[in-house]
Amino acid sequence: MNQEYLKKLARLAVEGGANVKKDQLVVIKGDIQAAPLIREIVSAAYDAGAKDCIVRYHDEQIKHEKYLRSAEEVFQKAEPWEAVFNNDSAKQDACYIHVVGGDPDLMKDVDPKRMQSASAALENASQEYRNLLNQGKNAWTIVASATPAWAKKVYPELEEDQALEQLWEDIFSISRVDENDPLDNWKKHSDSFMNRVKKLNDAKFEKLHYQNSAGTDLWVELPENYVYEGGGTVISDGRMTYPNIPTEEIFTAPKYNGVNGKLVSTMPLNRSGVLIKDFWFEFKDGKVVDFDAAQGKETLAELLAADEGASYLGEAALVPWGSPIQKKNRIFYNTLFDENASCHFALGRAYSESIEGGQELSDEELKEKGLNQSIIHVDFMVGSDDLSITGYTKDGKEVPVFVNGRFSDQF
Amino acid sequence: MNQEYLKKLARLAVEGGANVKKDQLVVIKGDIQAAPLIREIVSAAYDAGAKDCIVRYHDEQIKHEKYLRSAEEVFQKAEPWEAVFNNDSAKQDACYIHVVGGDPDLMKDVDPKRMQSASAALENASQEYRNLLNQGKNAWTIVASATPAWAKKVYPELEEDQALEQLWEDIFSISRVDENDPLDNWKKHSDSFMNRVKKLNDAKFEKLHYQNSAGTDLWVELPENYVYEGGGTVISDGRMTYPNIPTEEIFTAPKYNGVNGKLVSTMPLNRSGVLIKDFWFEFKDGKVVDFDAAQGKETLAELLAADEGASYLGEAALVPWGSPIQKKNRIFYNTLFDENASCHFALGRAYSESIEGGQELSDEELKEKGLNQSIIHVDFMVGSDDLSITGYTKDGKEVPVFVNGRFSDQF
Repeated sequence: MNQEYLKKLARLAVEGGANVKKDQLVVIKGDIQAAPLIREIVSAAYDAGAKDCIVRYHDEQIKHEKYLRSAEEVFQKAEPWEAVFNNDSAKQDACYIHVVGGDPDLMKDVDPKRMQSASAALENASQEYRNLLNQGKNAWTIVASATPAWAKKVYPELEEDQALEQLWEDIFSISRVDENDPLDNWKKHSDSFMNRVKKLNDAKFEKLHYQNSAGTDLWVELPENYVYEGGGTVISDGRMTYPNIPTEEIFTAPKYNGVNGKLVSTMPLNRSGVLIKDFWFEFKDGKVVDFDAAQGKETLAELLAADEGASYLGEAALVPWGSPIQKKNRIFYNTLFDENASCHFALGRAYSESIEGGQELSDEELKEKGLNQSIIHVDFMVGSDDLSITGYTKDGKEVPVFVNGRFSDQF
Repeated sequence: MNQEYLKKLARLAVEGGANVKKDQLVVIKGDIQAAPLIREIVSAAYDAGAKDCIVRYHDEQIKHEKYLRSAEEVFQKAEPWEAVFNNDSAKQDACYIHVVGGDPDLMKDVDPKRMQSASAALENASQEYRNLLNQGKNAWTIVASATPAWAKKVYPELEEDQALEQLWEDIFSISRVDENDPLDNWKKHSDSFMNRVKKLNDAKFEKLHYQNSAGTDLWVELPENYVYEGGGTVISDGRMTYPNIPTEEIFTAPKYNGVNGKLVSTMPLNRSGVLIKDFWFEFKDGKVVDFDAAQGKETLAELLAADEGASYLGEAALVPWGSPIQKKNRIFYNTLFDENASCHFALGRAYSESIEGGQELSDEELKEKGLNQSIIHVDFMVGSDDLSITGYTKDGKEVPVFVNGRFSDQF
């Protein structure tokens, strides 16, 4: 792994992703295997003027053993200090840098209910933190660090060392880290989104029609005053942040109760080590009323049952076929990469910035305006090289948005 | 490093050290470099019936950068969640396994005031935790994990790999981990203390007189109903625990205001990367009234100034010259090992179990009975091969306790 590129990736996460400001508290969470990247992030954060860095390490091997061996009650409620940490740091105006990457198969033998109830318990205990993040008060970003087990899963045909090296190269190249200044590269990439985002927002679509030969035939209403965002997100103090490094998507939220028809996945979904394959959903007034999967159906059912909002959509994202990630023609077994491979939707919570002024609204008000609420947010891919998306405006105008899997000439 | 021995060391920490009981919460704290040992401790804890393990990793490299680069205010108060963690876990009847070991030189360039005020802030915010531990409600133990930088410091003449291997061998052998059952070995070792402990307690000494050719000439009064403990500590629910792995010491507390004369160190004291060498203290009614050091005097002064109790003694421990650690004739730059090399005292807090019924008393009551209170507890070595310690009982009987650095025939 190229140490100079690692430093650049760290700087990109700090100055681009979280856009760390002077005297800010910076929270970094990640696996102990990511220590080389995390240490560079810490240095970059101090360079950017952070007043303090708090690193919360976990260890996926220990997490795995905990899920298998701890008493059932442990997963029913959050540790008070975890909630205090989330709520208190958010109130201190912290930003959050999440370093992801790990063995995609590790949790295969774990009861998904345990993971889900543990994460729901923590979410519920961290209401203040969640609200502040939803209101765009705190910046956050996700960046990846390669691990041997993850690399071997993505590149099973390579030796472990080579696979690791290759995955690092992928992470760097897809994140646009190269010989140039990483922030210059990133800005160029981000600027390319701006034009499209503006056009999509100006179009004032009432609904979109998704169709392809895989079987998707879906009508998606958009909320009044929907906002498409691409690349960056402007948080409440006006600073541009990038929640995902890399990012290729332009996204908004569907009107949660205005989705009808059939939606067929075009890539497997990795959920805690279980690969859900060849799955589809049938929607009626936004709710999943039927679904199936050639593999992993039970895990998918668990997911849909997480809470009321888990069987409604919260995100609709546009990624042209032929994106750098899609071109690699690999499953990365990691949402950060796989979601940027092609067009996707997410089950669960909508981002509050997906409607105008959404960051000022409460969960209830957001829902009233059509934005789904849930403890989950799980992306799945629906893009294909023959996907067409047609937009319809209130006055009946029909506008091609995607033709043959890519933005139409009008975008 | 011998993986089987690592497992045995983990089992010794869990079943011996902390004596984990069924359905207990087990907290493990350590550096990310100790992950191989910590993972074995987690497995051993579940094997012993733990209901949950919480691992709190830190990263000494990041800690170092934090001390150098975080804003001053960060070290003035404890993060609320850290205190909640300590207090809440202690109230949940957790036991604590601390894995130590790291680069002894890393913190050399750090302002010791920052470290001291950070640790004082956390201690003060963790009053409930401290009280419960002082009352013997929660078991705790310290065990070591070798790291390359630490090994290289102890064995500078060896290559890094060899040094690491050698330090692991030392940790295993000194902790009595070998081909046999580690708990059997430990029990044999522990039993050997029992006879001496009983005799020392039955002797009902009023005071001890320490003398050697290094210049020590010190009178140490003992509190009424002092308790010498060796090896293990019985906690409030009656279970035997071993706070230190390894352990060679039999210790009690001096009467904090009853120490007079001169005390000369016989081994350097490593304090956050600064080596304090050839130092001595002059005591008057317990308080250090004069001191000097050939090296590190400033750091020693900081230490004595930590709080009111920092310039009084809180522990007096007996370790015969010729202990396994002393025989290695190495400085380990780690209190867990160096304090077991020879007789020592500690500046700062006394252990409440050093007087009969002490675990039931408040800090104020303990002080009234002669037990020193402080936020620090720092051991330093005074043993030598010509150290003599003579005990005096109330009725004027004179009993040789140590002759030529070792227990006299009467013990």
